[in-house]
Amino acid sequence: MQKLTDQAPEFIRAIAPYKAGKPVSDVVRELGLDPNTVVKLASNENPLGLGEKAKAAIAQAAADLGRYPDANGFSLKAKLANRHGVGSDQITLGNGSNDVLELAAKAFLTQGRNAVFSQYAFAVYPLATQGCGAQSKVVPAVCYTHDLDGFLKTIDANTRVVFIANPNNPTGTFLPQDKLLAFLKQVPKQVLVVLDEAYNEFLQPQDQYDSTQWVGQFPNLLVSRSFSKAYGLAGLRVGYAVSSVEVADLMNRVRQPFNVNSLALAAAEAAVDDHEFLKQTYDVNLHGLEQIQAGLKALNLEYVPSYGNFVLFKAGAGADAGMKVFDALQRLGVIVRPVNGYGLPEWLRVSIGLPHENDAFLKALPIALATLQAS
Amino acid sequence: MQKLTDQAPEFIRAIAPYKAGKPVSDVVRELGLDPNTVVKLASNENPLGLGEKAKAAIAQAAADLGRYPDANGFSLKAKLANRHGVGSDQITLGNGSNDVLELAAKAFLTQGRNAVFSQYAFAVYPLATQGCGAQSKVVPAVCYTHDLDGFLKTIDANTRVVFIANPNNPTGTFLPQDKLLAFLKQVPKQVLVVLDEAYNEFLQPQDQYDSTQWVGQFPNLLVSRSFSKAYGLAGLRVGYAVSSVEVADLMNRVRQPFNVNSLALAAAEAAVDDHEFLKQTYDVNLHGLEQIQAGLKALNLEYVPSYGNFVLFKAGAGADAGMKVFDALQRLGVIVRPVNGYGLPEWLRVSIGLPHENDAFLKALPIALATLQAS
Repeated sequence: MQKLTDQAPEFIRAIAPYKAGKPVSDVVRELGLDPNTVVKLASNENPLGLGEKAKAAIAQAAADLGRYPDANGFSLKAKLANRHGVGSDQITLGNGSNDVLELAAKAFLTQGRNAVFSQYAFAVYPLATQGCGAQSKVVPAVCYTHDLDGFLKTIDANTRVVFIANPNNPTGTFLPQDKLLAFLKQVPKQVLVVLDEAYNEFLQPQDQYDSTQWVGQFPNLLVSRSFSKAYGLAGLRVGYAVSSVEVADLMNRVRQPFNVNSLALAAAEAAVDDHEFLKQTYDVNLHGLEQIQAGLKALNLEYVPSYGNFVLFKAGAGADAGMKVFDALQRLGVIVRPVNGYGLPEWLRVSIGLPHENDAFLKALPIALATLQAS
Repeated sequence: MQKLTDQAPEFIRAIAPYKAGKPVSDVVRELGLDPNTVVKLASNENPLGLGEKAKAAIAQAAADLGRYPDANGFSLKAKLANRHGVGSDQITLGNGSNDVLELAAKAFLTQGRNAVFSQYAFAVYPLATQGCGAQSKVVPAVCYTHDLDGFLKTIDANTRVVFIANPNNPTGTFLPQDKLLAFLKQVPKQVLVVLDEAYNEFLQPQDQYDSTQWVGQFPNLLVSRSFSKAYGLAGLRVGYAVSSVEVADLMNRVRQPFNVNSLALAAAEAAVDDHEFLKQTYDVNLHGLEQIQAGLKALNLEYVPSYGNFVLFKAGAGADAGMKVFDALQRLGVIVRPVNGYGLPEWLRVSIGLPHENDAFLKALPIALATLQAS
């Protein structure tokens, strides 16, 4: 007799089972580390945590958690619409921007269709595509950067979604606005361009641009933003999309009615206005980025100059160099992110932390690299 | 030229756009009501809110929200596994049980397949089914109750999922365990039976059963539970499934890695052990259910005897009776739930509240019914 699970669609069974990282508390216990000195620079989180305004909003909203969230996120949408100068009906809220990316895929992808994205791009793009039974078309990166000309050549009659991360995770590379605009002018109108700007708030003034203003001109553009990075709300899960009304209407049809929880709504609404916290986050990151990149340079390590809150650097030569240095760093109490799952087994990604955390990383790194040479 | 949104699959475009209810604050303002006296009995929420243990856990976890949630929900899963006497690898966590129901659909449904469920069953079943491009096969209810013989006759070679709500929302009806077991013995093994027990904790001792113990015998059984009702965590979004390891593995492949937020994980873990709060919730509900049902009987209104934390009652005759009485009640400051979307336009659903809230409803109801007779 056929097993029940053989009845799942083949494209679902083909999804690689999700391997969750061990909780930091387990790593600490197993390696006998001092939990007070362990430095976690693994998930591009805000080392300042969340801002005081968001904290206060959470404390206030926590009294009313027996009630369902506002299914329409009325108040947060109004605030975001005002910020971007668009209508509330152009905003889609998500349980993190991960949810937003999946909703975009679900609205446009199905078996026989495909999505186009870059090599070394965010891991959710292939997952969201495969979850809909669609095909992933991967465009080789050029110098770890999206090759938009390659995108145009790869798009075919069955392409319905293009994912672009700007800045890109895990490489930290950046596409200036003139390249994006040139691409948008050439991409076929029946293809939804998902511009994933989770790291947008870390861009320096000379690189900043506002793609949400382009949606009027390009109704096939969807801009995705996150509260998990600069806003420090990773634990609460909230992200959003700005798109045409028509695309937002479709996303709204496929989302879960209560996809964003009450505290996420309240905290995000407070965080949008906390310009002081955002400025502080930006300054801490810029300083830390300089500190880490200077440290890597001093160690003669290759790295990709970053526009985000993390740096991709080459740990060594050989298919297990990244994992070996990762393991050695972890034993020294510094947790970074292996990127072999991205096809970068010689590299590691380190998130920007507080100055003393960056210091701890830079002090541990040469010791960890030495274990590599010894082996 | 074809519009972008015409590129969305037909089954996605056919989903009815989600119409969110107005926030209570808007209703209050528009109708000029006193916000301190408005009674909301619309969403089957816990009138006690959330318990003190959950509150304390939230306050403690709120300091660390800059970090991502534990993607594997290790600690909560371990607690739930222990509670049900199953392995952690048999638990799937969801962003509310809504998420769990969607994951089950996504894992097994696709175009050309179908899901079977009852008339007057939870609104998420047809939405989750349609979102996968699958067909909904609706079995007519008998006396507002699931007709399991009808289910067996309706299941065909393309059926992959059956949804059963027990107790059922919005009717409040209940299937005793012998009927469920007889059904499970007859249902084809290639069909996943999703037993949605969101209201399980409100069952009286003589009706209680533990279906999570049946999963060993029936590997095609998935039991879904919620923290939104008796546990009072509706605003935080957390639910879970107990299933075979194989089915849990598939669900894990299709879920979003951080689908459950940090505060939901922490609060649910604390709530599982808060037996005192659960007992208090049960007592308040049982008392309120007797109060409301006695009040409806005194008004000579037809109602469906309920096993949940709500009662379905007949507001009057005619296709707009429910909405008219709903409007009149709302003007009197009592918000209940219209169920015309469930094909029950003559009926209304009222959630069980605190004694004084139930009183307010029962005092307002004859006045609201009088406006119906006057029109």
